[in-house]
Amino acid sequence: MAVYTEISDDDLNRFLVDYEVGELLSFKGIAEGVENTNYYVHTSAGPYILTLYEKRVAATDLPYFLGLMDHLASHGITCPTPVRNRYGQLLDEICGRPAALVSFLDGVWIRKPEAHHCASLGEALARLHLAGADFPMHRPNTLSVAGWRALAGALGPRADDITPGLADAIAEAISRQAIWPEGLPKGVIHADLFPDNVFFIGNRLSGLIDFYFACNDYFVYDVAICLNAWCFEKDATFNLTKGQALLSGYHRVRPLTDPEIAALPQLAAGAALRFLLTRSYDWLHTSPTALVTRKDPLPYLRRLRFHQAVASSREYGL
Amino acid sequence: MAVYTEISDDDLNRFLVDYEVGELLSFKGIAEGVENTNYYVHTSAGPYILTLYEKRVAATDLPYFLGLMDHLASHGITCPTPVRNRYGQLLDEICGRPAALVSFLDGVWIRKPEAHHCASLGEALARLHLAGADFPMHRPNTLSVAGWRALAGALGPRADDITPGLADAIAEAISRQAIWPEGLPKGVIHADLFPDNVFFIGNRLSGLIDFYFACNDYFVYDVAICLNAWCFEKDATFNLTKGQALLSGYHRVRPLTDPEIAALPQLAAGAALRFLLTRSYDWLHTSPTALVTRKDPLPYLRRLRFHQAVASSREYGL
Repeated sequence: MAVYTEISDDDLNRFLVDYEVGELLSFKGIAEGVENTNYYVHTSAGPYILTLYEKRVAATDLPYFLGLMDHLASHGITCPTPVRNRYGQLLDEICGRPAALVSFLDGVWIRKPEAHHCASLGEALARLHLAGADFPMHRPNTLSVAGWRALAGALGPRADDITPGLADAIAEAISRQAIWPEGLPKGVIHADLFPDNVFFIGNRLSGLIDFYFACNDYFVYDVAICLNAWCFEKDATFNLTKGQALLSGYHRVRPLTDPEIAALPQLAAGAALRFLLTRSYDWLHTSPTALVTRKDPLPYLRRLRFHQAVASSREYGL
Repeated sequence: MAVYTEISDDDLNRFLVDYEVGELLSFKGIAEGVENTNYYVHTSAGPYILTLYEKRVAATDLPYFLGLMDHLASHGITCPTPVRNRYGQLLDEICGRPAALVSFLDGVWIRKPEAHHCASLGEALARLHLAGADFPMHRPNTLSVAGWRALAGALGPRADDITPGLADAIAEAISRQAIWPEGLPKGVIHADLFPDNVFFIGNRLSGLIDFYFACNDYFVYDVAICLNAWCFEKDATFNLTKGQALLSGYHRVRPLTDPEIAALPQLAAGAALRFLLTRSYDWLHTSPTALVTRKDPLPYLRRLRFHQAVASSREYGL
């Protein structure tokens, strides 16, 4: 949680001159977001979020992310909708940072999701995949199989500082994934649909946020990420009821093909490996006293081992 | 800026059961506030601020602060209005912290106030003093003349770590204030009405916030605090135009008496000393890497010297 860039009333008023959103009524820095700085901005036209993109997000990717949010919003997905400025642009600048004004989305993220939340998530994920079908831009997934070896290399033997044997476990997991499935159905995926990116009002899923890892990849890889993110308990055991709910929610909207079902255990292991790698990297490169809280990578080592032992997708509830 | 206590959806939903504010729609931690944790909370009844009182605010003072906000709001002052829970209480509890839900106030604080902002501030301050007239509770000002010696003692010779000679300058300033004026008009004062506690929408003053230093003291001491907080430039020079605007704005609503006018230079020096002391203490006791930004005490040494050299209140623009 952090506000990396402080903006003033003058900065914001100058920025808003480019937007047709009426008079500035209030703004507050939000203590959320690891990658970016977010402000709640209230104008006479309504509530918005102003996001300042800090160093970790590549500026060249922003047209993809913002274009996607715009596309999804116009295709029935409830997500933050970027507001075009007077020049028709989704991306602008404030305090030397690329910045976008997006609609404020009501909703609360669920700290302890239950099976019915997982079912709603599965449905929403499938709707997202369908809605992205004719989005014309393309962004490769740098955090899938092609990126793991480089990530593991950046960790090197220091991985063992996190827990002894981790470097070997990672190397072994990568070699197991050498033959990656080919030809599975693909399109736009969210790639980071953790509970904190899914909003609920009461028991109703009210929206999806944070499209800053979105890319083009196998749909079932997105499903695999969600299985990792939503269906494990604190003690790292898999909750079959939640897995079943998530998968059947998805299946109702977009039926999984046989090759996707067959590939699920491998992609679930791959997804666990992805978060094990990036969290390990962040763990080693974030000071324990930094503004952001480091996320423990080790639950993903346990998830990885679970998936490696899965013989059939039936074990996920399919 | 900091969120000291993280709350979950479950925590907040349990808390809101005690309030008649409809359904929870969203909440976000706000990266503001040095003393407390604040959340923006949106329910079907409207927007609110939830404040969790952290250690620095004495729990025994909270009934005064919340009672005062309630009193002022019902007497025409635009300020955060505490919401009573189902048991009629203004103060409740969340995550083991005393907490209050207050109305969300639109407005933006002005980083670079101009003379017309100072005029509006003067009027609002006078209105606040009049509106507090029949507030029945009492809280002494622990940060006025009676508290300075203890604050200076807590600093001790370490004051010279901030700038050589500071300990002597403080001791000398305290001895100069030994004969403090008596019998001036008194009542409820805000005692911390810096620009970040005064909201504007466009050029219109839209509300006052942060009553957590409010107490009973001389009205003109509050005026003296505002002169220090609003009317000096970055180079520590006094801006007579702003002083004049602030004082005549105040005078229009609540005319200052002759003894108040005569006492102003001494009280302005006292107010500068108060912020010099507390900022020096915080400077020495806050790690430079802490979540909150340390405020430089030395501008208040320069303000103190300015006030010590003032011969008559005419020099403030009266």
